[in-house]
Amino acid sequence: MNTKRVVTMLIQTVKSEIVSHLSYIIGNNNEAAVIDPRRDCKIYQQIAKNWGAKINYIFETHRNEDYVTGSLELEKLTGATIFHGPGLPWGFGKIIKDNQEINVGTLKIKALHTPGHSPDSTSYVLYDLESGEEPVIVFTGDTLFVGDVGRTDFLGEKMTPTMSERLYDSINDKLLSLGDGVIVCPAHGSGSVCGGKIREREISTIGIEKKTNPMLNLTKDAFIKQKTSEQHQTPPYFMQMEAYNLNGPPILGEIPTPYPLTPSEFKKTAENSYIIDTRTPAAFGAAHIKDSFSLTPKRLLNVGWVADYNKPILLVVEDLHALDFAADNLFRLGL
Amino acid sequence: MNTKRVVTMLIQTVKSEIVSHLSYIIGNNNEAAVIDPRRDCKIYQQIAKNWGAKINYIFETHRNEDYVTGSLELEKLTGATIFHGPGLPWGFGKIIKDNQEINVGTLKIKALHTPGHSPDSTSYVLYDLESGEEPVIVFTGDTLFVGDVGRTDFLGEKMTPTMSERLYDSINDKLLSLGDGVIVCPAHGSGSVCGGKIREREISTIGIEKKTNPMLNLTKDAFIKQKTSEQHQTPPYFMQMEAYNLNGPPILGEIPTPYPLTPSEFKKTAENSYIIDTRTPAAFGAAHIKDSFSLTPKRLLNVGWVADYNKPILLVVEDLHALDFAADNLFRLGL
Repeated sequence: MNTKRVVTMLIQTVKSEIVSHLSYIIGNNNEAAVIDPRRDCKIYQQIAKNWGAKINYIFETHRNEDYVTGSLELEKLTGATIFHGPGLPWGFGKIIKDNQEINVGTLKIKALHTPGHSPDSTSYVLYDLESGEEPVIVFTGDTLFVGDVGRTDFLGEKMTPTMSERLYDSINDKLLSLGDGVIVCPAHGSGSVCGGKIREREISTIGIEKKTNPMLNLTKDAFIKQKTSEQHQTPPYFMQMEAYNLNGPPILGEIPTPYPLTPSEFKKTAENSYIIDTRTPAAFGAAHIKDSFSLTPKRLLNVGWVADYNKPILLVVEDLHALDFAADNLFRLGL
Repeated sequence: MNTKRVVTMLIQTVKSEIVSHLSYIIGNNNEAAVIDPRRDCKIYQQIAKNWGAKINYIFETHRNEDYVTGSLELEKLTGATIFHGPGLPWGFGKIIKDNQEINVGTLKIKALHTPGHSPDSTSYVLYDLESGEEPVIVFTGDTLFVGDVGRTDFLGEKMTPTMSERLYDSINDKLLSLGDGVIVCPAHGSGSVCGGKIREREISTIGIEKKTNPMLNLTKDAFIKQKTSEQHQTPPYFMQMEAYNLNGPPILGEIPTPYPLTPSEFKKTAENSYIIDTRTPAAFGAAHIKDSFSLTPKRLLNVGWVADYNKPILLVVEDLHALDFAADNLFRLGL
């Protein structure tokens, strides 16, 4: 039934709810590429298989601080080449140069160095050569969001003004000049700790952002002042993410499957573990295990705030669906 | 697990391969709307359910000539209100006025009458009120495609110049003026009989189309001349589509399930039926039933060229997957 030939330019967004992370797979002419893969990355291979395409490239928009990268897992599955920008240490992948171009079928990806959120921040512009040499989409990573721009405080207070200025220049000189008609695909949606006031809508264009993004209507001085005055939270688990994403996290192949414990096993393990209870607050209030944390599925990100990475986590869940949800999302945080 | 509250602006494309038809469901704040639903429409209800949203509106971009509308099926499933433009007889739904606005959660849909492909052609502009009163997406139906514009020959040769002029005015006065940053979501992709040279890419913006769509770089006179000289095919099954979409097709609720026939039953029925063999040409060449048509799955649309709607169709298929594929796609053609 399948002719195993992708001619259409295909693009699909893969979203991870808890960290509000948006990754993308693009495909054309039996080739595919993934931008910012998440750790449980078989989904990209499945999509590519449905398209009859092979994933040949992985593009990282920056060394992420809020989730575990899936690049190495995906490289192992597919043999794809990993690219990232310069300016930060990376234990894996290749540096892609400013304006370097890579063909994916009849699509073309062009790297634009857009430092500011991170020194290695890189945006990727997609050209559809069928329609000509006009940019169609830009994957902006954490540089430009829908309604906001990236944080500039990760290198510390002293560097924030410098990074803010670099972000301003990257956005104004490199992104806005692509033209109003270019579609903007950012790496995070609303609720991410990587931005402040990211909108609920997850797709935009340069033209819409120029008109409606409050950060794009500031002078350079006002922009830097605004970015320098912002107060962001930096969860303690970001330290572990940095270690993972610098050298590459352990490759597990599969999301570890939690197994059930008998009450006596649970009690024995509990002494040296974090107990996370994802049931409703009402159920937790009615009865719960001593010293357990009540974190509903939507708030599982907060496990990264309370747990360190050296102790096991014991889960108390409502049902198997809740167990899967917790296992998937903790895996993405490296827990 | 599900908070049953859609806050994000959601949009999903539902594509029907054979007719290369693109329909869309949008959702926000527990409400959803569908643009140009196809006949097997439970998929929209399933998507809306996953979003925790209720489908309250159905927007038709025009009375379609190439597939059976799913509006009445979807209305029956959901109780949604059907809207369409004026200018052609419709046996169902309500006329939406030029510039009339409908709220869907915190989104707003504004109708723009854009006659030309059909007298009732209507485009729908989506505003995301969270980010302000700027248009974000325009659903262009068969008025503007990626890389092409709609056919203008359906009212006959005599009317083609007039309809071409109306199409030119609709596109230039109403669509292009929305601004370069507006995302374009058309009703057809490459391969549709409703356009000539529609590109493989299925998403665009006004800005990209202005730069790369050859039909948008013509003077009015050249545009009309070009449209009047085009040679399009009008398959005979369009007559049946017109009858169905004028008064509303029979509501079946489910895609009819074909049942197997014994050789003697097959032989008996075959005399008054069309026999369609979807196996590979090699298999057909090796052995086939007398007077059967060889039409591989990708070419099933051609059933609409050879069969009339008063005789049964007998299918000869490779396996159950091929049977489902044929049943789904013939249902969409009203066969």
